[in-house]
Amino acid sequence: MNIAMPYLLFIGDSEFVKTARGVRDWRPEQCIAQYRHASNPVSLDLPDTGFDEAFKAGARTMLLGAAPPGGGLPEHWVDDVCKALRAGLDIASGLHDRLNAHPVIKPLADELGRTLWDVRSPEPSYPFGTFERRPGKRLLTVGTDCAVGKKYTALAIEQEMTARGLDATFRATGQTGILIAGGGIPIDSVVADFIAAAAAQLSPPAEPAHWDVIEGQGSLFHPAYAGVTLGLLHGSQPDALVLCTDPTRTGIGAFEHYPQPDLQEAVRRYTEAGALTNPDIEVIGVSMNTSAMGEDEARELLEREEARLGLPCVDPIRLGVGRIVDRLAG
Amino acid sequence: MNIAMPYLLFIGDSEFVKTARGVRDWRPEQCIAQYRHASNPVSLDLPDTGFDEAFKAGARTMLLGAAPPGGGLPEHWVDDVCKALRAGLDIASGLHDRLNAHPVIKPLADELGRTLWDVRSPEPSYPFGTFERRPGKRLLTVGTDCAVGKKYTALAIEQEMTARGLDATFRATGQTGILIAGGGIPIDSVVADFIAAAAAQLSPPAEPAHWDVIEGQGSLFHPAYAGVTLGLLHGSQPDALVLCTDPTRTGIGAFEHYPQPDLQEAVRRYTEAGALTNPDIEVIGVSMNTSAMGEDEARELLEREEARLGLPCVDPIRLGVGRIVDRLAG
Repeated sequence: MNIAMPYLLFIGDSEFVKTARGVRDWRPEQCIAQYRHASNPVSLDLPDTGFDEAFKAGARTMLLGAAPPGGGLPEHWVDDVCKALRAGLDIASGLHDRLNAHPVIKPLADELGRTLWDVRSPEPSYPFGTFERRPGKRLLTVGTDCAVGKKYTALAIEQEMTARGLDATFRATGQTGILIAGGGIPIDSVVADFIAAAAAQLSPPAEPAHWDVIEGQGSLFHPAYAGVTLGLLHGSQPDALVLCTDPTRTGIGAFEHYPQPDLQEAVRRYTEAGALTNPDIEVIGVSMNTSAMGEDEARELLEREEARLGLPCVDPIRLGVGRIVDRLAG
Repeated sequence: MNIAMPYLLFIGDSEFVKTARGVRDWRPEQCIAQYRHASNPVSLDLPDTGFDEAFKAGARTMLLGAAPPGGGLPEHWVDDVCKALRAGLDIASGLHDRLNAHPVIKPLADELGRTLWDVRSPEPSYPFGTFERRPGKRLLTVGTDCAVGKKYTALAIEQEMTARGLDATFRATGQTGILIAGGGIPIDSVVADFIAAAAAQLSPPAEPAHWDVIEGQGSLFHPAYAGVTLGLLHGSQPDALVLCTDPTRTGIGAFEHYPQPDLQEAVRRYTEAGALTNPDIEVIGVSMNTSAMGEDEARELLEREEARLGLPCVDPIRLGVGRIVDRLAG
């Protein structure tokens, strides 16, 4: 998967534009313009253009960056998609409905020679490889739960490393991450047999000083998703883990009767599990989403956990990830 | 999945009849006859019949129980499959090629109202449920590696429990197991997101004294498949684990540079991992494939490991699984 950039961000008449906003935030230089219906009050603070105008301005792919109710492709977007294809644009989509299965869009794209990227759809299989150590370095974000900042933390670490002149590549494992990176593997959609194989392919052999910064998924402590998390951990063979958490949660996501793990226990369990494929693995820092806490309370918590765990504890939004990146650069 | 039995076992002109033999061994009462090409020297010690004759004798499904080279459906079997459909039989297949996608077989089955069972093909998704404890008891076989007797051990335990008048159901997670049981979920073919959800569905709520005996897959110590193993463990929420191993192996399957785990460590790790969804989980016995060892050597090893681990250690073929079942009945 290698999506041509820059993007025209399509938000149509939707107010749910999380995907488009993620791309806008993390790859502003790749976002040329937005296309929205006249009625839509939401804006990404980009120029409003038509399809031809966006193509002339350099856009190469139109990103369907909004989630309509239900996650399907609204029928009244089809005409816009067809116009974008005719204007010269590929289309990238994180919707549940596959563009490559659409009875109008797919034939038109084929006729015009355009590419339709359904970023939720992985390959049917991946080669197993050997699971020997690969050259290059790898960092994986892991979590006490889902939706605790694993993608954000990975992107922030890549950004900080790049700003320091370090050689780093963000590797995406979920749809928004894939649209930000222009490639990746939607790891939780892969057939179970191939989770680790897919993860290995996602971070291929690289230069010895290069870091892949891999977006984690799920949690070893999540009753439904721990299998995905473990396969991603084993296939990534990370040298460094960053543990992400939300200190205000008591239970796991939608399974409130499952408790959040203690951070010390989580460090131990992730290290133990990851050591199967990389015996040198270590947790190098903790990333906490303290957005629901006051400034003083957050700083106190971070200091207390830092002393207890012996690891840099940061809130990536409040304080940045510099102190974690220090551990990689040193 | 609820495959109508008994079976006509089709082995055609293939000498690789492992699947058919597994069904023949574990469900002899469900095997009415075999169908093979005149040239085939292999026999399952069943009457040779034609399709009409098998149907009249009570067969309801023809099982494609042989693996042709490559695992696909040989073109010269298609005519036989069509004749079997016309004779009144459903067809069950563990082949890679899906009968439900075949341009001749599928339309004919639809026209005749027959069912085609592609046992490698799971549902596209499974409901997540709550991962709360379900009524009924569950036993899962787990392994130090792939192909160490997890299916055999589960079937032997079900057989022994049933012989003792205990209420037990074998739950299949792989294609041969599914054909033996007439149902199940091919867990390593499920989309990664749904491994645990599928496993939960496989062993639904039951009577308090009922035991589901669940066929394990992969190994927590296998670099490629541990994710499947963990998801199956979490979704099954087993009360009892039986650890399966082959004491003559040094490395893991095709990944010889990965070592076999120590059994004590394996017991600890499986218990630790499984406790997430069932805190009362315990390993109740060890099942060893000692077929490559002499009788004395095998007995010595089993006694030594039994003393070291404090758990009954059996070879299910040499000695049966009675001493493990004692732990369930007691």
